[in-house]
Amino acid sequence: MKIIIIGGVAGGATAAARLRRLNEKAEIILFEKDEYVSYANCGLPYHIGGTIKERDELFLQTPEGFKNRFRIDVRIKSEVVAIDAVRKTVTVKDLGTATQYEEEYDKLVISTGAKPIKPTISGIENENIFSLRNVPDMDRIKLFISEKNVSSAVIVGAGFIGLEMAENLKEAGLSVTVVEQADQVMGIVDYPMAAMVHQYLRTRKIDLLLKEKITAFEPDGKSIVVKTESRKSIPTDMVILSIGVTPENSLAREAGLEIGDLGGIVVNDYMQTSHADIYAVGDAVEVRNPITGKPALIPLAGPANKQARIAADNIIMGNKRVYRGTIGTSIAKVFDMTVASSGASERLLSREGMEYMTSISHAGSHAGYYPGALPLTVKINFAPDGKLLGAQIVGFDGVDKRIDLLAQVIGNGGSIYDLQEIEHAYAPPFSSAKDPVNMAGFIAENILTNRVKVIHWSDMLEVESDAMILDVRTKEEFEFGHIENAVNIPVDELRDRLAEIPANKPVYVYCAVGLRGYTASRILLQHGYTAVYNLSGGYKTYSCVQQ
Amino acid sequence: MKIIIIGGVAGGATAAARLRRLNEKAEIILFEKDEYVSYANCGLPYHIGGTIKERDELFLQTPEGFKNRFRIDVRIKSEVVAIDAVRKTVTVKDLGTATQYEEEYDKLVISTGAKPIKPTISGIENENIFSLRNVPDMDRIKLFISEKNVSSAVIVGAGFIGLEMAENLKEAGLSVTVVEQADQVMGIVDYPMAAMVHQYLRTRKIDLLLKEKITAFEPDGKSIVVKTESRKSIPTDMVILSIGVTPENSLAREAGLEIGDLGGIVVNDYMQTSHADIYAVGDAVEVRNPITGKPALIPLAGPANKQARIAADNIIMGNKRVYRGTIGTSIAKVFDMTVASSGASERLLSREGMEYMTSISHAGSHAGYYPGALPLTVKINFAPDGKLLGAQIVGFDGVDKRIDLLAQVIGNGGSIYDLQEIEHAYAPPFSSAKDPVNMAGFIAENILTNRVKVIHWSDMLEVESDAMILDVRTKEEFEFGHIENAVNIPVDELRDRLAEIPANKPVYVYCAVGLRGYTASRILLQHGYTAVYNLSGGYKTYSCVQQ
Ligand SMILES: Cc1cc2nc3c(=O)[nH]c(=O)nc-3n(C[C@H](O)[C@H](O)[C@H](O)COP(=O)(O)OP(=O)(O)OC[C@H]3O[C@@H](n4cnc5c(N)ncnc54)[C@H](O)[C@@H]3O)c2cc1C
Ligand SMILES: Cc1cc2nc3c(=O)[nH]c(=O)nc-3n(C[C@H](O)[C@H](O)[C@H](O)COP(=O)(O)OP(=O)(O)OC[C@H]3O[C@@H](n4cnc5c(N)ncnc54)[C@H](O)[C@@H]3O)c2cc1C
Ligand SMILES: CC(C)(COP(=O)(O)OP(=O)(O)OC[C@H]1O[C@@H](n2cnc3c(N)ncnc32)[C@H](O)[C@@H]1OP(=O)(O)O)[C@@H](O)C(=O)NCCC(=O)NCCS
Ligand SMILES: CC(C)(COP(=O)(O)OP(=O)(O)OC[C@H]1O[C@@H](n2cnc3c(N)ncnc32)[C@H](O)[C@@H]1OP(=O)(O)O)[C@@H](O)C(=O)NCCC(=O)NCCS
Repeated sequence: MKIIIIGGVAGGATAAARLRRLNEKAEIILFEKDEYVSYANCGLPYHIGGTIKERDELFLQTPEGFKNRFRIDVRIKSEVVAIDAVRKTVTVKDLGTATQYEEEYDKLVISTGAKPIKPTISGIENENIFSLRNVPDMDRIKLFISEKNVSSAVIVGAGFIGLEMAENLKEAGLSVTVVEQADQVMGIVDYPMAAMVHQYLRTRKIDLLLKEKITAFEPDGKSIVVKTESRKSIPTDMVILSIGVTPENSLAREAGLEIGDLGGIVVNDYMQTSHADIYAVGDAVEVRNPITGKPALIPLAGPANKQARIAADNIIMGNKRVYRGTIGTSIAKVFDMTVASSGASERLLSREGMEYMTSISHAGSHAGYYPGALPLTVKINFAPDGKLLGAQIVGFDGVDKRIDLLAQVIGNGGSIYDLQEIEHAYAPPFSSAKDPVNMAGFIAENILTNRVKVIHWSDMLEVESDAMILDVRTKEEFEFGHIENAVNIPVDELRDRLAEIPANKPVYVYCAVGLRGYTASRILLQHGYTAVYNLSGGYKTYSCVQQ
Repeated sequence: MKIIIIGGVAGGATAAARLRRLNEKAEIILFEKDEYVSYANCGLPYHIGGTIKERDELFLQTPEGFKNRFRIDVRIKSEVVAIDAVRKTVTVKDLGTATQYEEEYDKLVISTGAKPIKPTISGIENENIFSLRNVPDMDRIKLFISEKNVSSAVIVGAGFIGLEMAENLKEAGLSVTVVEQADQVMGIVDYPMAAMVHQYLRTRKIDLLLKEKITAFEPDGKSIVVKTESRKSIPTDMVILSIGVTPENSLAREAGLEIGDLGGIVVNDYMQTSHADIYAVGDAVEVRNPITGKPALIPLAGPANKQARIAADNIIMGNKRVYRGTIGTSIAKVFDMTVASSGASERLLSREGMEYMTSISHAGSHAGYYPGALPLTVKINFAPDGKLLGAQIVGFDGVDKRIDLLAQVIGNGGSIYDLQEIEHAYAPPFSSAKDPVNMAGFIAENILTNRVKVIHWSDMLEVESDAMILDVRTKEEFEFGHIENAVNIPVDELRDRLAEIPANKPVYVYCAVGLRGYTASRILLQHGYTAVYNLSGGYKTYSCVQQ
């Protein structure tokens, strides 16, 4: 059996290693157009920032190492320029000698990844504009910064990688402006979560421009000026484009493989393309998003690695292994903050016309009485039947562990009731007796069962003029800042002061985070008030989104 | 409706709060024999050690607070001395006035917790001997240490709380000896995992005595001497007993409620005792362990809290909420090390006669190329059909998050294949593209499908004398230390040196952690060798258990 692999990083290298372990006798050739294989793409920003000091650390295997350990014939600087799916051959261009040759295959694995999106903006070809996808990109950026004595950068696009770059360029000593077309960073989290990141980025002295569309890049001596639709001119030494990636599908398309509407290679559950002998994995393919049931592009390393192992298994053992789809669990460190997401955002759910409810809660990374607990905000989106559709967390510690738990429930098609049952490991340094994920389940249940009605920050801006806005925090908290027109009755006095609450008007209750507001709502509801609404996420979320 | 609750801490206080939120009109009385309610038992060791500086931090609610917020009639220093399940009354002894009175109930919740086991050893009543269950215990210990100028302590019993105490007394400046009857600490983890803790505790200057049975405590002036079966005499200033707890069941027993073989109150899935109007939760009850299907005592705060909420729901809304059992997910910080466990240990599985396989793997807390990754060891026990039965982790960072994920799979009755599919959040500071939990699933699959045979450290001591022990690490690693009689052929040279490996003898392969050993095993197996075994956990586990 002769197996050819195109692409030598996350998907390709992993497939190669697994193929060899499964079959010692197969001939395996891996083609990589770059000079490097098997490196940590995800580490690239951190070498630029200097956190990963040694460039060598980024390489997990070398062509030499692949040969010694796995007897894999790794050919770098070798671009596959054509696939003939009928004759089962690939045409390879040796980028060193510029010669071309053919290789036959019995099975082919495509793991060509994705390429950065480059918008058609005037001046985009300026040599001060970079994107970051691979080692040469990284080297170029690093060299440019040091050689050109760069002191400022504009990052275009505030997705996960954009913000990682913001942090790392800041660490590298640059002053950094982030320009984002949308009204928020990190489009896969919902607005109130992004708002926390906005606030935080500003404390870290990142110049954040939202709702700014770039109209042109204009050269200015050694520098460049970024022009926006709102007529801003931002002079800077360099620009990093990070507005997303698109599948590297040209080879597959030209070979006649089926390409999906989103531009990814279409594969079945076995990671097999429309040609039975060709498998494809990683950023180049469309996966099924189990939440929407629809194809999606989810360019992440974990899925690429897992898909690669499945493809290898199916190549050697026949189609047995099924890939169950990707829900899109992702995370980024942004300075000391962590932002994570899994499953569907409100945006996606709205777009798909899927009915959902949402809830925000604030908790601590571990028991409050044990020192060092840091705030953690959890937002979950769930269906009216309780099915968990999406989850997002912003915090400073323990974000990763909670998003993984939430992802587990989402991935299993579980519900908010499953969150309640999560039997987490509890000792004071690690969690609370009721972990924030349990708590998210409790809160959601109370909403679902109509034990409490909630109102969200966005609707709070439009409450009836004769409604009562009831702040149930302490007097001190109230005086420190409150929602306009709110009346303060601390929850512990509420039962004795019911007379102050009008009987036939809606009451919008809030506290700091939602907990006391919930308790107050329960009291009011059981004392005959019917139109009682608790502010989800409390004053903390409300005041953050107002800024 | 009138509801009485016995016990005012984890289970009792939580039930009270939820009951009130569900029903504003019910009369709710909570009896607590101690002076304190609603405190953090789990924090007690840390106030002794000084990590939790303010004693006040330990209290989450006060009787006063309960009244104001929840209109709950909390009566402290009020011991319930009898339950009359027929007349539906409790007899309460006011410990202040020593008077007794009766209260009627419609529904009763028992959350009396557990009491420390006190073995019948000569001298056990010595006033230098303490156990730690509640705030007065803590106060006594703290006072004794400061007033008596204590400089040494012996901890009897090396379970989770025993080791937390070892750490905290060390932090408080004492020299600490831990005496344990078994051959290992933390009986709920398997030996090779405990061995890592042994090694570590010694680096932290804890005097650890294993397989030592205490025969007597002898007074010696202001001190005490601990005598052991092996004739050791350990003079010390104080002794902490931490050999476990037993359900506080006397009230229930005397009231005629069904008590299980393990000594816990028997409850059904609704947390209802053998009397329909009496519910019981927390350390006092026997839960179902879903792995064995049998009753178990699992005295942990998370389950107590969750059970309490379920009991409250069932009291108010009729039996609707089911408690699905406790798998026993627990965790302890031991200085900088973290030890965690979920599900069944080898010991439990053997006792239950359940067939199982086991696998150890070593990984990093996050991607190796990103600074700060710390070692993490994962052990999983699984059934021959792949069902995950138990998991244990020892490490220094990220242990909590992996045990929670493993617990999720165990709790759902999932398999090692589910581990492979966990879609975790990956960025370099948090994980690897294949998380250690995925990896544990891959490794187990290879064992289950006979892709590799493994040998465990314990069997390695008894291999055939003519077998080949093959060390596939580098020459440098080999020279630094290796298994006796091992032959060194680095994995990358293996294919070229097959002639050196005898054809008809068993080959026991090992590397540092198991990964290269696995690759080497695959090579040998596919070159016609049949009796090839890879050492699970590699030299790292092997050398650790040998010490
Ligand atoms: C800066 C950065 C940070 C990231 N951070 C994270 C993160 O924190 N977490 C996360 O989950 N993911 C992250 N990712 C995404 C992750 O790296 C990708 O999802 C993953 O690498 C995809 O694997 P792949 O094999 O599909 O593609 P790649 O790893 O990109 O490999 C594709 C390879 O194919 C080669 N190739 C393409 N066409 C040809 C051809 N015709 N002939 C020969 N070779 C060809 C390319 O040169 C490339 O080397 C990050 C990506 C980048 C760029
Ligand atoms: C030092 C220590 C550390 C711990 N660490 C952890 C940890 O890290 N993680 C974890 O999950 N668990 C831990 N636990 C266990 C956890 O605290 C218990 O599982 C949990 O508190 C059990 O809740 P409960 O309501 O059943 O009992 P408790 O919380 O013990 O409450 C029982 C209460 O009932 C009262 N009572 C008993 N009988 C009567 C009566 N007749 N009349 C009136 N009152 C009565 C008692 O005085 C007591 O206050 C720890 C426990 C201790 C002691
Ligand atoms: C380096 C690379 C080639 C390694 O591929 P790999 O060999 O499949 O992966 P690992 O080294 O993690 O080893 C995993 C294998 O070893 C086995 N293994 C791991 N630890 C083991 C242990 N202690 N004992 C036994 N087996 C073990 C696993 O079961 C798995 O084998 P399997 O797939 O046959 O079941 C590939 O991961 C790569 O190129 N990565 C870099 C690119 C990348 O992923 N970038 C994106 C992220 S930044
Ligand atoms: C303090 C104590 C009385 C609190 O009990 P509690 O009110 O049930 O618990 P919490 O304060 O965590 O609040 C949880 C409730 O608030 C709700 N809630 C929490 N955050 C919320 C938010 N942001 N918005 C709306 N509701 C929220 C939850 O849904 C839950 O209500 P529910 O049970 O009716 O669904 C009790 O936990 C206790 O005594 N603990 C100390 C003892 C102990 O547990 N010891 C062992 C561990 S060391």
